[in-house]
Amino acid sequence: MFRESNGRSLIKTLSWRFWATITTALLVYIFTKKIELALAIGGIEAFLKLILYYFHERTWNKISFGKKEIKPKVIWLTGLSGSGKSTIAEGLYKKLKSKELKVEYLDGDRVRDIFPKTGFSKEERDRHIRRIGFLASMLEKNGIIVIAAFISPYEETRQFVKDLCSNLIEVHVSTPFAECKRRDIKGLYAKAEKGEIKNFTGVDDPYEEPLNPKIRIDTTNISVEEAVEKIIPLI
Amino acid sequence: MFRESNGRSLIKTLSWRFWATITTALLVYIFTKKIELALAIGGIEAFLKLILYYFHERTWNKISFGKKEIKPKVIWLTGLSGSGKSTIAEGLYKKLKSKELKVEYLDGDRVRDIFPKTGFSKEERDRHIRRIGFLASMLEKNGIIVIAAFISPYEETRQFVKDLCSNLIEVHVSTPFAECKRRDIKGLYAKAEKGEIKNFTGVDDPYEEPLNPKIRIDTTNISVEEAVEKIIPLI
Repeated sequence: MFRESNGRSLIKTLSWRFWATITTALLVYIFTKKIELALAIGGIEAFLKLILYYFHERTWNKISFGKKEIKPKVIWLTGLSGSGKSTIAEGLYKKLKSKELKVEYLDGDRVRDIFPKTGFSKEERDRHIRRIGFLASMLEKNGIIVIAAFISPYEETRQFVKDLCSNLIEVHVSTPFAECKRRDIKGLYAKAEKGEIKNFTGVDDPYEEPLNPKIRIDTTNISVEEAVEKIIPLI
Repeated sequence: MFRESNGRSLIKTLSWRFWATITTALLVYIFTKKIELALAIGGIEAFLKLILYYFHERTWNKISFGKKEIKPKVIWLTGLSGSGKSTIAEGLYKKLKSKELKVEYLDGDRVRDIFPKTGFSKEERDRHIRRIGFLASMLEKNGIIVIAAFISPYEETRQFVKDLCSNLIEVHVSTPFAECKRRDIKGLYAKAEKGEIKNFTGVDDPYEEPLNPKIRIDTTNISVEEAVEKIIPLI
């Protein structure tokens, strides 16, 4: 965060006006060899351009061309383990970052690494997601676009988060259970089926499908880039 | 969040140059009544000033006068219930806001309102503070000054938060127990002494004094303004 003091802006403005006017006056002198004419034109120019600059700025403030307002928002990706949430979220994060937007990325696995004791019971999942929602809403409130990728299996909890945030875009990464299980990138489905992991969403814990998401994306047959491109117009 | 497209910046620059040069050329014409002279001076002026403006900007980039870098940071207020943490935090928040800085204020009571089930056992307090610390560090990472007012009684937990954040200023609001109890603004000390509230810091739960805070502020004999003024120089 850099701030320019009022003094700096003032002195910089005067400095520019000084050199700009000197240039004009010198030009007039070089062409006409009349010092009084150079000084007169320079003096009037300095005065006129201050006024002109002011009106130029005011006019451009009214011109909307090329001025884009990007409201901060929360892009919330929900879906089964292995559905492609994190991969899409990372792609989206890079895409928005490359546009020099202020973006933060929150991911279930990364957050759980910092808080290893967070459990997977309904109550613990619920509290966990509510807290993440609060974090997301705070970031959003401060002008940051938040991308959140969490299984977040319960409709009620997602609704709580939606209400906390001003502008939450719910993205249901709806890759079917069978496909997620087939991929089983982290080997978790195999463990869950053997009973080595308890409360695993889709196996012995429910996933409540979002009732009314902004978009549903099934990654069975599409690439990360295609999935990201589907979300971009919503932002 | 507003963004100017490159196209807008370019066209605005050209627009300014056009009107500024027209003004110069008109001035020369009015004084000399020589149209060729006016055009010649205008043409050369437009070209020269583009170069001049560039070097003017580059030179000012090297001048540090009036340029203040404000690094985001976390101002963490710890102390007993009733020590004056929230009051100081609010004063500090208003002060920083009035300087048009990006500030967020996190307060124990307000956060617990949103998460009413958060308990007061050592483990629950500990997890709660760690999560708040994570939230603070995320905001800090995104360029926001965070003011956090939490009893946060355990040194180890405070250390965890300090490590999460890049730049945490620990403020120990060190108003003594006797004074906090005498004030008893929320009537909590009375309840705790009667055993109506369990795990109350200072009564039946310990407060571990910070070992090495940036500053200790005892509000027994000083006003909010004085307390805020003590913290400002640390930011």
